[in-house]
Amino acid sequence: MSADIEELVDRLAIRDLVDAYAHHADRKDPDGQADVFTADGVVRLFEGDPTTSEPVGTVTGRAALASTFADLVSRYDATTYLNGQSTVTVTGDTATGETYCMAHHLLHDNGERVLLTMAIRYLDGFERTPEGWRIARRDLVFDWTERRPSSA
Amino acid sequence: MSADIEELVDRLAIRDLVDAYAHHADRKDPDGQADVFTADGVVRLFEGDPTTSEPVGTVTGRAALASTFADLVSRYDATTYLNGQSTVTVTGDTATGETYCMAHHLLHDNGERVLLTMAIRYLDGFERTPEGWRIARRDLVFDWTERRPSSA
Amino acid sequence: MSADIEELVDRLAIRDLVDAYAHHADRKDPDGQADVFTADGVVRLFEGDPTTSEPVGTVTGRAALASTFADLVSRYDATTYLNGQSTVTVTGDTATGETYCMAHHLLHDNGERVLLTMAIRYLDGFERTPEGWRIARRDLVFDWTERRPSSA
Repeated sequence: MSADIEELVDRLAIRDLVDAYAHHADRKDPDGQADVFTADGVVRLFEGDPTTSEPVGTVTGRAALASTFADLVSRYDATTYLNGQSTVTVTGDTATGETYCMAHHLLHDNGERVLLTMAIRYLDGFERTPEGWRIARRDLVFDWTERRPSSA
Repeated sequence: MSADIEELVDRLAIRDLVDAYAHHADRKDPDGQADVFTADGVVRLFEGDPTTSEPVGTVTGRAALASTFADLVSRYDATTYLNGQSTVTVTGDTATGETYCMAHHLLHDNGERVLLTMAIRYLDGFERTPEGWRIARRDLVFDWTERRPSSA
Repeated sequence: MSADIEELVDRLAIRDLVDAYAHHADRKDPDGQADVFTADGVVRLFEGDPTTSEPVGTVTGRAALASTFADLVSRYDATTYLNGQSTVTVTGDTATGETYCMAHHLLHDNGERVLLTMAIRYLDGFERTPEGWRIARRDLVFDWTERRPSSA
């Protein structure tokens, strides 16, 4: 059973990693958000399925990631990155996974309160490092978005 | 502790199964979606609590399920079946569980973009088969739905 | 590995506890909802980050909690407390955790159907008791809310 236990431990650690990304995003901590990646981690943005479309943007390395996250954080009053399911396959010291996220962004545009929702799938490649599991590659897929006026 | 480990392994496998249903639905793979059921698996649809209302529809067996899923898939531009919590009780080679899903359906109706949201609870009966855990019975409960014009 | 297994078992039990709160809320069972707390459990409500704001309400003890939950239940036609991620740290017989919940409340106001959504984070302190894990302290943080007319 020990292989089963190791897989359970790895999968929980990987899920914690994915959730840490959301936590740091919502708490407006771009450095914490960048630290869930390997030093040379890569995020690619897709507005369609990665198997049939090209990335619309690529960010490489923790410093560039932190800078990108800091810019994003500054645009919103509040965000809630609600993570749903994670399906992860561990193969030794690497792993791949798909995680669902409904990302809510609250902002004001010309005094109007707006809720911007993004239906995201994270297609991740993970690596076991001396500091624990990290995201080495993240394909961030926007399946659809919605923007609407919102009142409390 | 070995009973605990087995339960952890079973619960993770069952959760993966529930998540596979969502994955195949969203990727428009009705055969993959039907394969999470036993060969004679049954899905019953409820528009109210199953303890106090009758099913409004019943689909039995993988072939009929695949056909039903294929029809559903064709109606929508995109779907996002965001799974929340799963509460599962394992008893030997069977299990029961409740899973929350906020099911988002993007479509066009007379040129208007529409977002149809369904608050779903899956009340499942699982069976351990030679191919792994499968869903033998799924009561699909629509607690409420919402349909609204949507812009990107 | 036994420490790992114990942590996995504890984390699953704690997640089940958090999910039981949502289940009992949505099934309109305020006593079941109160039973996930220790006898002297405390819920504090925050309309901003707990590190920088004071609670806007505090409820102490199972009887007061059940009464509060019963009052809330009576206001809504239906609720769906969709739980996302839980990040939990176990330390012996206590634990702390953050859980995301997108709480949907369907109601009628002067004949109009309304959907009230609350983006909630539960910041919990758990205790291992003879009856299993219980919530001893819950800081319930409303990050934002949205109220909108809704049609089926």
